[in-house]
Amino acid sequence: MAGFPLLPHQQIGVDEQSRAIQNRDLQLAVSNRKIASMIIELVNTGSELMLGRVLNTHQQWLCRQLADLGYLVSRQVAVPDTGTDITAAVGEALARADLVITTGGLGPTSDDLTRDLIAAMFGKTLREDAEILAHITEFFESRQRRMPERTRVQALVPEGALVLPNPHGTAPGLAMEVRPNPFRASKASWLVMLPGPPRELRPMFKDAVVPLLRRVLSLPAAFVCRTLRATGIGESVVEERVSAPLQPLVQLGLELGYCARPAQVDVRLAARTADAEALVNRAEAIVRERLGDFLYSHGEEEIEATIVRRLNTLNQTLSLAESCTGGCLAHRVTNVPGASAVLLAGLVTYSNAAKGKFLGVRATSLDAHGAVSEPVAREMAEGACRETGADYALAVTGIAGPSGGTETKPVGTVFIALAGPFSTIVERKFNPFDRETFKQVTAQQAFDLLRRKLPAPR
Amino acid sequence: MAGFPLLPHQQIGVDEQSRAIQNRDLQLAVSNRKIASMIIELVNTGSELMLGRVLNTHQQWLCRQLADLGYLVSRQVAVPDTGTDITAAVGEALARADLVITTGGLGPTSDDLTRDLIAAMFGKTLREDAEILAHITEFFESRQRRMPERTRVQALVPEGALVLPNPHGTAPGLAMEVRPNPFRASKASWLVMLPGPPRELRPMFKDAVVPLLRRVLSLPAAFVCRTLRATGIGESVVEERVSAPLQPLVQLGLELGYCARPAQVDVRLAARTADAEALVNRAEAIVRERLGDFLYSHGEEEIEATIVRRLNTLNQTLSLAESCTGGCLAHRVTNVPGASAVLLAGLVTYSNAAKGKFLGVRATSLDAHGAVSEPVAREMAEGACRETGADYALAVTGIAGPSGGTETKPVGTVFIALAGPFSTIVERKFNPFDRETFKQVTAQQAFDLLRRKLPAPR
Repeated sequence: MAGFPLLPHQQIGVDEQSRAIQNRDLQLAVSNRKIASMIIELVNTGSELMLGRVLNTHQQWLCRQLADLGYLVSRQVAVPDTGTDITAAVGEALARADLVITTGGLGPTSDDLTRDLIAAMFGKTLREDAEILAHITEFFESRQRRMPERTRVQALVPEGALVLPNPHGTAPGLAMEVRPNPFRASKASWLVMLPGPPRELRPMFKDAVVPLLRRVLSLPAAFVCRTLRATGIGESVVEERVSAPLQPLVQLGLELGYCARPAQVDVRLAARTADAEALVNRAEAIVRERLGDFLYSHGEEEIEATIVRRLNTLNQTLSLAESCTGGCLAHRVTNVPGASAVLLAGLVTYSNAAKGKFLGVRATSLDAHGAVSEPVAREMAEGACRETGADYALAVTGIAGPSGGTETKPVGTVFIALAGPFSTIVERKFNPFDRETFKQVTAQQAFDLLRRKLPAPR
Repeated sequence: MAGFPLLPHQQIGVDEQSRAIQNRDLQLAVSNRKIASMIIELVNTGSELMLGRVLNTHQQWLCRQLADLGYLVSRQVAVPDTGTDITAAVGEALARADLVITTGGLGPTSDDLTRDLIAAMFGKTLREDAEILAHITEFFESRQRRMPERTRVQALVPEGALVLPNPHGTAPGLAMEVRPNPFRASKASWLVMLPGPPRELRPMFKDAVVPLLRRVLSLPAAFVCRTLRATGIGESVVEERVSAPLQPLVQLGLELGYCARPAQVDVRLAARTADAEALVNRAEAIVRERLGDFLYSHGEEEIEATIVRRLNTLNQTLSLAESCTGGCLAHRVTNVPGASAVLLAGLVTYSNAAKGKFLGVRATSLDAHGAVSEPVAREMAEGACRETGADYALAVTGIAGPSGGTETKPVGTVFIALAGPFSTIVERKFNPFDRETFKQVTAQQAFDLLRRKLPAPR
């Protein structure tokens, strides 16, 4: 269930975190005002974003978290680290939104301006928070590093703001109710300021911002959101199969969405009705019935995680023999914690000599059929099983391009073989994509071949 | 020089493309007005962005392209695919900017609204363009697919707009001078509308938008931008070493920037003065003198590409023996076109048995020192050289975590070995990061170890 940590039925520990926030000695009186339909905007600050040196992943991550809570962000804005740009963007967002989330600009360097600008915008004084200062001091001491004097500014808190603790860094987050809101005469708004580094922002959002939102804003009580992942089937075919049968449930309030990626389609089912759970359950049953074995996981598990999980349960092992994917399968499998109990070896046999030496592929097969061929894929997979003693082996040989194609085997041609306790299976695929997409799509197809042959769970 | 295709001295073929645009039978009279200091804003449309299902890579890509041309984007906005949101965002951008670039909303489906909305905003009628329609028809015919009737809307062009051809898809881009600009009484602006899919947007930007901008807006004549990449040194140390000696050149107009990534620091040198080339050359000489061997490449080449390129020149080969990095090194090396001439094999020996069988690591070494140890790393590298006949072999063994650490070898401990025509080198590193960052940082360190030992180029 990685990626869905905020589903309502999974809110374990939230009360504890919420209490931790309430217990902080702060002057803020949190009002219990609830906003029926919340307008949310994001403001990311950072001159490096404007130079295109850094990919902004905050927008997607925050939108995804909020969507899984039942909210749609209505605008994302990114501006450089200058006072006028940040002030203008935050003011415009506060004129429209009930909740404005900013990222960045809370650090210790001279281009970190958010804290000072926000205090100035609302005429708040900054006071040094002893608890934050102690945290920062401790942070440096525990790492046996000198605390630069400039770091101290991170302990400054605008009067009336709530502090969001940062266990992974020195700059705390800040939250304040903007009331009165000078940009939106009749309505108050919440302003939440988060630090820029993802490893600090993400846990802070989950551990401090979500409990805060639950307390001060109206998170829908019954919001349920579930994603089913399919592979080996195109987006339009998925839509064709499930759209009509789901239509009656859409009438009842089901929110339905599709998202296509290379060799993967996500079907998102959500509801915020009183019977949300039952509605999503009914929708899931229909999607399962219509897509059957094309669905590989419940939740947003990657297919390599599905495989590692199921092989672990079965107490069985896997080896990999790769040519054109060049280690992509091994890299993906070993990204999954627990892979070491499952994966015995990955043999990236790029040269023909390596195919012979490590996998026992016969020179006669290479000569007669070429390295990209059904017999060689078969011998690679069977050799990987034999040489490593694994229960299953996947083998891949193909032409990733950009060069190397022929008339009968154009760039994109690939043979995928699976050896195991059954006759070896070899599939021929055609993936005429750029080099990296080729590797990822081929890996997905190989993992899916194995998934379909593993004994069913339970 | 991948990633820097738009440097002025590399503008090969731009005139041809520019002429192709001028030759199109369009009513637009392009004015030769030049804007001295251009304000640029991006507006991305897409409800999927707001749900966090898709990572927005357009902003970074476009900002990077524009920065390499000498321009800084001053605001990025993303809004859902609704008429009011798009109209508001475009109108607000036009009130501030000389150039507004939109992405998305030009396709054939019912949520593709940009074309209609822009025409309505400026009271332009839409006319069907015969040339575009022929392109769309041909696009489907050449793929032997039926052309859905709805696709035809993509041939509609707002009166007075310039068409930007789309060789990679059916929806052309559009460009129009907004004059008079109702949102900014005294100044005209340019509005450029690009399709959403990156494989369509990117070539269109390079082949059609850049020539257009050169023609109608004031791209700086002498803008030069160069990036030097360092590894094995922290950002603050880089800054400490080069900042003061570069200060006199900054006074003369040098633009200096740093960007830190895991185990890598980019130093960006740019200038737009009359002597830009000479200024950047002087700056580069200083940075090279100060950072020396920490710099691994000129231009934005990844370090694995540096290695493949240099091994190819040397006509030498490489093998890899990986434990904790699980194929990450092999995956990165094989992402580089031309890797097949260099990489003989990558052996992902996750289990101890595989280390023994494929690399000849002795059971006594594993028993006495453990798999994560200096002797085992050494035997892995030497075994990979011996077993594959490669000139060089890199080996990696460590503890990626999240579990498996001990008192003396905590999670993050890693041994990197390099075997070759010299005594095998083993380095111990400590990379206490999450699993994926651990793999990437370790790979970077391993590649750098090899790079430093390769005979110097030329």
